[in-house]
Amino acid sequence: MITFSSFSLPNLRLAPTTSYANPQRIPKPPNASYEPDSEPQARKLKGSPQLARWSRARSLRSGRKLDRAGQRTQLLDPNHPPQLKERALLVTKDTTLAASDGDDDVDMTAGKSIYMVSDGTGWTVEHAVGAALGQFEHCLVDRGCAVNTHLFSGIDDLERLMEIIKQAAKEGAMVVYTLADPSMAESAKQACNIWGVPNIDMLGPITQSIASHLNVSPSGGPRKYPLTDEYFRRIEAIEFTIKQDDGALPQNLHKADIVLAGVSRTGKTPLSIYLSQKGYKVANVPIVMGVPLPETLFEIDPEKVFGLTINPLVLQTIRRARAKSLGFSEGMRSNYSEMDHVREELEYARRILARNPVWPIIEVTGKAIEETAAVVLRLYHDRKHKCSMPRISKRY
Amino acid sequence: MITFSSFSLPNLRLAPTTSYANPQRIPKPPNASYEPDSEPQARKLKGSPQLARWSRARSLRSGRKLDRAGQRTQLLDPNHPPQLKERALLVTKDTTLAASDGDDDVDMTAGKSIYMVSDGTGWTVEHAVGAALGQFEHCLVDRGCAVNTHLFSGIDDLERLMEIIKQAAKEGAMVVYTLADPSMAESAKQACNIWGVPNIDMLGPITQSIASHLNVSPSGGPRKYPLTDEYFRRIEAIEFTIKQDDGALPQNLHKADIVLAGVSRTGKTPLSIYLSQKGYKVANVPIVMGVPLPETLFEIDPEKVFGLTINPLVLQTIRRARAKSLGFSEGMRSNYSEMDHVREELEYARRILARNPVWPIIEVTGKAIEETAAVVLRLYHDRKHKCSMPRISKRY
Repeated sequence: MITFSSFSLPNLRLAPTTSYANPQRIPKPPNASYEPDSEPQARKLKGSPQLARWSRARSLRSGRKLDRAGQRTQLLDPNHPPQLKERALLVTKDTTLAASDGDDDVDMTAGKSIYMVSDGTGWTVEHAVGAALGQFEHCLVDRGCAVNTHLFSGIDDLERLMEIIKQAAKEGAMVVYTLADPSMAESAKQACNIWGVPNIDMLGPITQSIASHLNVSPSGGPRKYPLTDEYFRRIEAIEFTIKQDDGALPQNLHKADIVLAGVSRTGKTPLSIYLSQKGYKVANVPIVMGVPLPETLFEIDPEKVFGLTINPLVLQTIRRARAKSLGFSEGMRSNYSEMDHVREELEYARRILARNPVWPIIEVTGKAIEETAAVVLRLYHDRKHKCSMPRISKRY
Repeated sequence: MITFSSFSLPNLRLAPTTSYANPQRIPKPPNASYEPDSEPQARKLKGSPQLARWSRARSLRSGRKLDRAGQRTQLLDPNHPPQLKERALLVTKDTTLAASDGDDDVDMTAGKSIYMVSDGTGWTVEHAVGAALGQFEHCLVDRGCAVNTHLFSGIDDLERLMEIIKQAAKEGAMVVYTLADPSMAESAKQACNIWGVPNIDMLGPITQSIASHLNVSPSGGPRKYPLTDEYFRRIEAIEFTIKQDDGALPQNLHKADIVLAGVSRTGKTPLSIYLSQKGYKVANVPIVMGVPLPETLFEIDPEKVFGLTINPLVLQTIRRARAKSLGFSEGMRSNYSEMDHVREELEYARRILARNPVWPIIEVTGKAIEETAAVVLRLYHDRKHKCSMPRISKRY
């Protein structure tokens, strides 16, 4: 079994004294196998040398100059509240920040940064920031107002937390955090406020609201993904869906929750996978001119079949790119992306779908997989519950 | 092409007069193909009959009694601000709420409800609520404090929004919403406050913080998933990963970003799929005693190979369940889940992994796919950037 120490990590200087308000946060002893809950000490206490190196590397790559000497002095103003000052100093003792590279100008064309800090996997904060950035597409396009996000996951000790916030202060980044431990969340907020870092607690408010609603206190521990029956059903759905991909095993169509039918390059595969991760067993059946559809498709419950269609021009563009990436030569399957063929195949699909009026047709042109998935699941649940208002319900 | 009207929807009474402060919210005319931006009128104005039916159905299923007559009267108190009262009445005109089923007791053992309302796909609010509920696992287990979530996606008109909030009031549910249009978000907040519904705006605060940070106003439109190059690379990664599943096409291992190696049932497939959805091309290679590993595995960059290991007892349990679900008879491959064989195979894998000391070994016992994925990606990015502090960076 390989321990983490066998990695080619640089030698880390460990801070000689580390005292925290919260004694359980003292790094645990090294452990034989690598997992986030039992990281060896070297990892726990890794600090600024790497951060500085990263900072320098980024600086070089982007042509950006990092340090803001004036601000830095202000950040470490001795008038700060003693507790945080002490923590800050504890961290500073061991740091040689990129500051030492020593440039004073900041070239903001490299974009603004958002630091996402999580004590868990970080997927929730990443997802939320991605969604919020959707509100700025008009300005993000072509990096009109460029944004760089940096996800720091598994941050469950104060030292690394402070290090990250400090780096955010230096870089002029904002910090979005999800920290289940209330004392960690409070420390993040205080440090950000003191160091002038815009910050927001992503899950705190919603957790508090739910706590009031349920009249139960939150655990305050990092999120554990419970390995429930539902979890294992999701895994099973993913495995089922992969096996059924691209018309494989038509004899199993009756076992699927959802069956997608459409011509090549309407996004059946990624859509199937996306839905399977939400726990649905999905099969997809390609509609190809001259290839008969499996008989089972017409024998199963038609309420679970969904047809996908797409604009012919868009389909042609996608197929051309596809043909190129597959290395089709001019002669080989040339009609695959030819306009006449594309139109003819879509018309062929249209006729098949029209003969099965219970199958809804979903227009995928210009839609991302996530959006098509939302349409499919709305219809799926509407039909299942024979009503169209309430959507997807789950029990916890 | 099938229009939505060909679905077996009940006849909906349409409210005879609908006047909104915001004229662009008037339902659009019917459209030939079904997509969220062009839903026919019948769908836009669907309302309470379905909701009532759903409500009754749930009530029957759960044995719960729904109406709280006293509270309802209070909800429609004529002293409410005139604008919202008017809206509320507009909705009420067309409603026959489950109230008419007429029970006055509420059986709270059926669990508390959380309504998640989104003008888009709803995946962000679903994800955040799921994460926040992780803080209540101690009480959710065995439905100690049962919670039911209901996702209402694509809610982009005021009428349906009010209908949902009203139902939440009746049911004593809380409402978590992500509504990009500030006037919709404001209406949701006002209606919830007036009707006494605990509510929280999930994306508003983070969007505002980012707006200040970037010094750019949010668009206020529903989130569009941009179909960027990055999006298409993600799709490509998913397709690559599926094709490489379970040791297929070993000649392509050099094209993968990440290669996972481990014995059967260490979660290689769902982990590969999860990572591929984040844009990584993943290949997985099963370690099976007596089956030689592909030579290419030892020829590629060892920094991208990750070994998975698991506790033998846990593995045996998973394999037993697997053997059962595959319908293995006692004689058939009986050693697959036999303890001696399981230990021997894990030992065999351990020796292979030990001979390749650059490959990290990741312990998957008790970890959900999302958690293992976080560990893999942390290591992947650490190695890529030759530093261990900053994590996963992205440009927008």
